[in-house]
Amino acid sequence: MALKKKPVTGMKDILPAEMAIRDYVIRLIKETYGTFGFSSIETPCVEHIENLSSKQGGENEKLIFKILKRGEKLKLDTAETEADLVDGGLRYDLTLPLSRYYSNHANELPSPFKALQMGNVWRADRPQRGRYRQFMQCDIDILGEPTNLAEIELILATTTLLGKLDFKNFTIRINDRRILKAMAAYSGFAPESYDTVFIILDKMDKIGLEGVREELEKEGFDKACVDKYLAMFEEITNDVQGVRYVKEKLEGVLEPEYADGLELIMNSVDAVKAADFKIAFDPTLVRGMSYYTGPIFEISMDEFGGSVGGGGRYDEMIGKFTGNNTCACGFSIGFERIIMLLMERGFQIPQIGTKKALLIEKNMPAEGMMKVLKQAEEDRKNGSVVTIAVMKKNKKFQKEQLKEEGYEEIVEFFADRM
Amino acid sequence: MALKKKPVTGMKDILPAEMAIRDYVIRLIKETYGTFGFSSIETPCVEHIENLSSKQGGENEKLIFKILKRGEKLKLDTAETEADLVDGGLRYDLTLPLSRYYSNHANELPSPFKALQMGNVWRADRPQRGRYRQFMQCDIDILGEPTNLAEIELILATTTLLGKLDFKNFTIRINDRRILKAMAAYSGFAPESYDTVFIILDKMDKIGLEGVREELEKEGFDKACVDKYLAMFEEITNDVQGVRYVKEKLEGVLEPEYADGLELIMNSVDAVKAADFKIAFDPTLVRGMSYYTGPIFEISMDEFGGSVGGGGRYDEMIGKFTGNNTCACGFSIGFERIIMLLMERGFQIPQIGTKKALLIEKNMPAEGMMKVLKQAEEDRKNGSVVTIAVMKKNKKFQKEQLKEEGYEEIVEFFADRM
Repeated sequence: MALKKKPVTGMKDILPAEMAIRDYVIRLIKETYGTFGFSSIETPCVEHIENLSSKQGGENEKLIFKILKRGEKLKLDTAETEADLVDGGLRYDLTLPLSRYYSNHANELPSPFKALQMGNVWRADRPQRGRYRQFMQCDIDILGEPTNLAEIELILATTTLLGKLDFKNFTIRINDRRILKAMAAYSGFAPESYDTVFIILDKMDKIGLEGVREELEKEGFDKACVDKYLAMFEEITNDVQGVRYVKEKLEGVLEPEYADGLELIMNSVDAVKAADFKIAFDPTLVRGMSYYTGPIFEISMDEFGGSVGGGGRYDEMIGKFTGNNTCACGFSIGFERIIMLLMERGFQIPQIGTKKALLIEKNMPAEGMMKVLKQAEEDRKNGSVVTIAVMKKNKKFQKEQLKEEGYEEIVEFFADRM
Repeated sequence: MALKKKPVTGMKDILPAEMAIRDYVIRLIKETYGTFGFSSIETPCVEHIENLSSKQGGENEKLIFKILKRGEKLKLDTAETEADLVDGGLRYDLTLPLSRYYSNHANELPSPFKALQMGNVWRADRPQRGRYRQFMQCDIDILGEPTNLAEIELILATTTLLGKLDFKNFTIRINDRRILKAMAAYSGFAPESYDTVFIILDKMDKIGLEGVREELEKEGFDKACVDKYLAMFEEITNDVQGVRYVKEKLEGVLEPEYADGLELIMNSVDAVKAADFKIAFDPTLVRGMSYYTGPIFEISMDEFGGSVGGGGRYDEMIGKFTGNNTCACGFSIGFERIIMLLMERGFQIPQIGTKKALLIEKNMPAEGMMKVLKQAEEDRKNGSVVTIAVMKKNKKFQKEQLKEEGYEEIVEFFADRM
């Protein structure tokens, strides 16, 4: 029977050229976060369906790949709903598994715990260019650190990584969910309308201040309230002065320490940063997930025209498992986007050692073969990449192919000259 | 709602200590095979159910985790069989996806193609100690190389890796499926009984020659035939003399070049090997998978009491996809077993740089904080691992914990002394 050659819908085979870049970036990620004291962890790709459907995942819960129960538990004839057939699913992110992991192992882990998790996640999105149903995520999280040291270290580590990959001129946009709410409260919006307000506010960079005004008014919000709200955005600068403005303006509505925290994060990152980027206060930054409780941040890159990562503080999620709140702050890096940008840029991996191809004549006798193998062994010990191949009829083409693969040195061995 | 804290049945969370070893081994694998000219590739974890059920996977096909169709395609009310509900499954090995990958991309890949694939596979086995339903596999394959250079390079690369991990005194057992068959033919067994004969032969190391004799006779095989068969095993030595004995004995039944090939592999590996191991001819080595067509091999390790990897030539499998046969030879390394052995041995990862913890007093003012962050940045640039933490009430315990994590140097920073 002929088998299916293409991968399943929306997932992809990764060819050697891309894979070499991925391996390099993975290694750099592990190394860089390693020097900041992060430990690698891993969770299973399969998660309990109950956990995946617990409303922590927002829209992603609609996109779960569900796994059939096995063996006796699968009763196809009496099954009435999907729930009778399914007990697991492929994880759609790494945050939910991390929360489960931490609640399961907190006693065995240091506190605070600095975790690095890289792994595939799956979402049954409609397939489209550059967007796959299986993709690698890379999350770093600091669990159990209540101070802004967590935010600072996450941002410094991540920007150090991006700098090592030669990314420049990007911006870390930062805000705080509590500032977001306080600005809405100060303007007179009712708490139950915050979500609607923020969804519209989130479009600021696309539709501009007047576009936001129009949409808010179309939603029926009071004009005075909308005016008071938007007037602030016209005043706020994106440096620490902007944060101080907010602190003064929202006196009595916002705890001043939240603004001070944001200022500390911005100043610290600015003073210590090891890469070429800006950190900017952005009061329009919303970030969709409802679990954020404090500072939120996003990496904007002009060359990509969007976010290549983001995160924030989520102090209440782990308590959903344990019953005891554990403060937490995390950063999710857009691994696939970074790889895409590096590929587009023609990124070259720093090469160590030479690449050598040893071509041996067909029917090389055993003694000759062993000489070649020994030479290869010697070269490899000295750090070279060495491939051995049997000469083909079209040797010219073979040598061209090897050069394309990066084998700059090609040595030929003939049976009668060994 | 309280969520489930434990991972799903049979799968495990990986803690930092194990993960550090895994990361180290993964890196060493990529590096070592890299110097032999292998390229990393990746295939999706989800595979077409048709491919997974194509009888390439033997017993593993009974253990597939099946994935529910999505959206409109899922018609629960009219579904009569499982096949109406399922269109994909989690891969149970890396060989089938590799074959699909190669048939899909052969035009874009060099020939021969030396592939390294590491990734998780899933089998719904009954959970038991040390055996998990999700586990990492590590496969190296050479596709399109008809000569025994493939076997030699696979064995040399793999043993070089094991040597770097400080494994010693292991044995590469080697045989050839065609010798296995020729020995049975020579003794007078009918081709349709080979499978039964080999299943019994495979138990030789457990039940001995007399045990094998007993079981073969119990199966009703002709006594003369059994005697002739087993007499050979008493004569065969496990060095190249044994291979030569087989070559002579089976003259007319076995192509002599198959024995010569085995001898070449053994001699070459012995002459060039970079680790401390033996290569031994083992005419009782069977290896279950029916797709093998030539030499087969296995790594035996006394300290583990079993195989930690194996492989062989499978020249006909890729043709199942393409219609054109492509010769292939592969090695699957028992990644999980190797990790288990390293853990049991108390393996220490070679450490680069010092590990430093900077403890800062609570409520450290911004300027002090920045000084600490700057020092950390400097130390990290110089290759140290640096973690920063806020001092806890029980500082003694905190420092003990940090020492346990390997932070040999702990520096304290107080607000009034900055």
